[in-house]
Amino acid sequence: MKRRIGEQTLIFTNEPVILHTATVAGSKEGAGKLGGYFDIVLTDNIDGCVSWEQCESKMMERAVRAAVMKSGKNIEDVDCVLAGDLLNQLMSTHFAMRTVGRPFLGLYGACSTMAESMLVGSMMVDGGYCDTVACCASSHHEAAERQYRFPTELGVQRPPIAQWTVTGAGSAVIGKAVYGPRVTTGTIGKVVDYGIKDTNALGAAMAPAAVDTLRQHFADTGRTPAYYDKIYTGDLGAIGREIVFRMMREDGIELSGVYDDCGCMIYLENQDAHAGASGCASSALVFCGYLFKQMLEQKLSKILFLGTGSLHSPTSYQQKESIPCISHAVSIEL
Amino acid sequence: MKRRIGEQTLIFTNEPVILHTATVAGSKEGAGKLGGYFDIVLTDNIDGCVSWEQCESKMMERAVRAAVMKSGKNIEDVDCVLAGDLLNQLMSTHFAMRTVGRPFLGLYGACSTMAESMLVGSMMVDGGYCDTVACCASSHHEAAERQYRFPTELGVQRPPIAQWTVTGAGSAVIGKAVYGPRVTTGTIGKVVDYGIKDTNALGAAMAPAAVDTLRQHFADTGRTPAYYDKIYTGDLGAIGREIVFRMMREDGIELSGVYDDCGCMIYLENQDAHAGASGCASSALVFCGYLFKQMLEQKLSKILFLGTGSLHSPTSYQQKESIPCISHAVSIEL
Repeated sequence: MKRRIGEQTLIFTNEPVILHTATVAGSKEGAGKLGGYFDIVLTDNIDGCVSWEQCESKMMERAVRAAVMKSGKNIEDVDCVLAGDLLNQLMSTHFAMRTVGRPFLGLYGACSTMAESMLVGSMMVDGGYCDTVACCASSHHEAAERQYRFPTELGVQRPPIAQWTVTGAGSAVIGKAVYGPRVTTGTIGKVVDYGIKDTNALGAAMAPAAVDTLRQHFADTGRTPAYYDKIYTGDLGAIGREIVFRMMREDGIELSGVYDDCGCMIYLENQDAHAGASGCASSALVFCGYLFKQMLEQKLSKILFLGTGSLHSPTSYQQKESIPCISHAVSIEL
Repeated sequence: MKRRIGEQTLIFTNEPVILHTATVAGSKEGAGKLGGYFDIVLTDNIDGCVSWEQCESKMMERAVRAAVMKSGKNIEDVDCVLAGDLLNQLMSTHFAMRTVGRPFLGLYGACSTMAESMLVGSMMVDGGYCDTVACCASSHHEAAERQYRFPTELGVQRPPIAQWTVTGAGSAVIGKAVYGPRVTTGTIGKVVDYGIKDTNALGAAMAPAAVDTLRQHFADTGRTPAYYDKIYTGDLGAIGREIVFRMMREDGIELSGVYDDCGCMIYLENQDAHAGASGCASSALVFCGYLFKQMLEQKLSKILFLGTGSLHSPTSYQQKESIPCISHAVSIEL
């Protein structure tokens, strides 16, 4: 039985259901636009741990356990965890998985990880390989800052086009159920690189990858933007979002009113986040914290959720390489 | 339809076939025990590139393209590439995938990546989500050394228990065919950490993870070591291999004659590799270069191939954490 349509889109005919989600957010995120939607908000970004990395790991573990509990499952019911983060060698994920103790597949999609994990997890449930999977992603502002840019304590001034890496973790448990938001398709992205070398301009670098996957999703499925109540990208911020609008207009497709970016939905104007939010947790917090609840309350019934990842490393930046990017999409329908 | 048996093992009833494999090896590897089995052997580990990282990326791209060509396919026939490497943010993989230009899912399993990619890739073909996938993994001695340990040029003395990171890339193309080595099951590993903190002792750290997955594979499938012509772990080296023999003996299972480690199969005694080979390319070169050909020639007809990955990072080491490890297994049968 063939379960792919067009070039890059998998179809999930058994329609794996998102049983429940959970989120752990940092203090700045808790004080932002969606603060009321997160399950746990930290009072500070160290949370009694000895390092920011350990704090991130603890957030991921709590998010997974909370999502499993809210799904009415025990952790032993989870047949596989699919997870990743931004740190070198997925440090937060691996130490979280050591404690969680379930079968685990590590993914690296940078900030596209939440969507990548839901795509692979849905396939595992849809195909009959697992009954229940947990998908998760995390990022931590201070841990990411010192790995990717400068020592965090240095407080280097950021240009206005920069985005703020989100502190948080989100988890979605996918399994079998008669009712609930269903993952109906998944479009696997290609690496797209428009030659941008400025690692502050990640929204601009990632936007063409999102557009590439968006175009392919419409071509593969025969759907148009009107099919969806709303389309969300992961962390393009204000600049990347504007580029998506413009590039799609060049195709004759108007996204006004039907499209937004998770990176523009987290921080308030006065929170000094510049062009918006970024990091794995940008899309993870917005989807697992806000969008899933909107679907449960039937305020949204059909969404397309695109993770967007910037795949550069500090080494590739130092070697003067441009920034390869990717975007994976999943459609979720009631 | 349920496609899982026991706790952690997926069964591939449509039996995805490994269409062909290809390898690119470094000069030291080319001069080793299996030198005659590699498709391309570099004359030096920079290969005309400006950096070791770029050299690794080029190796991966060549391995993927060669495996696709040997499979009688065009690169456009590849529905998805599943790949990863050891470098931060999968640097080699992402720049290779930028040029390859096919739909791509990034995996991080450290040195277990070859087995992880074959497990996920087989599921995608078996489940009908893809017709043809390319699975690949790479590592590069000099690039890994400077990232994980010391500046490579410093030539820091290595203790006798240390292993040598393999320079190379391997790729296996999995698809549909009436004949050929078939991937029949995949056992997803759990993170196992026995408290070892010495990053020179990776074989000892990873051995318990391999044993955990081996035990689970036998429990899930009802098979015994006698079922297989041979069982291979990825890169435990001489010390880790000995630990596997001993731990399995404690279970009353004798592996003598039926088990070997890829890390003990690459270098000659006089090549000064100490306890053996390590890195993603250890298992990738041995499987894609040697084992696959042994199966084609019917010298082996049933093997169990376990990738073994040490999931620590330089940051977790500096923070005095122990080393979490994982092992994923795939059984391949004629």
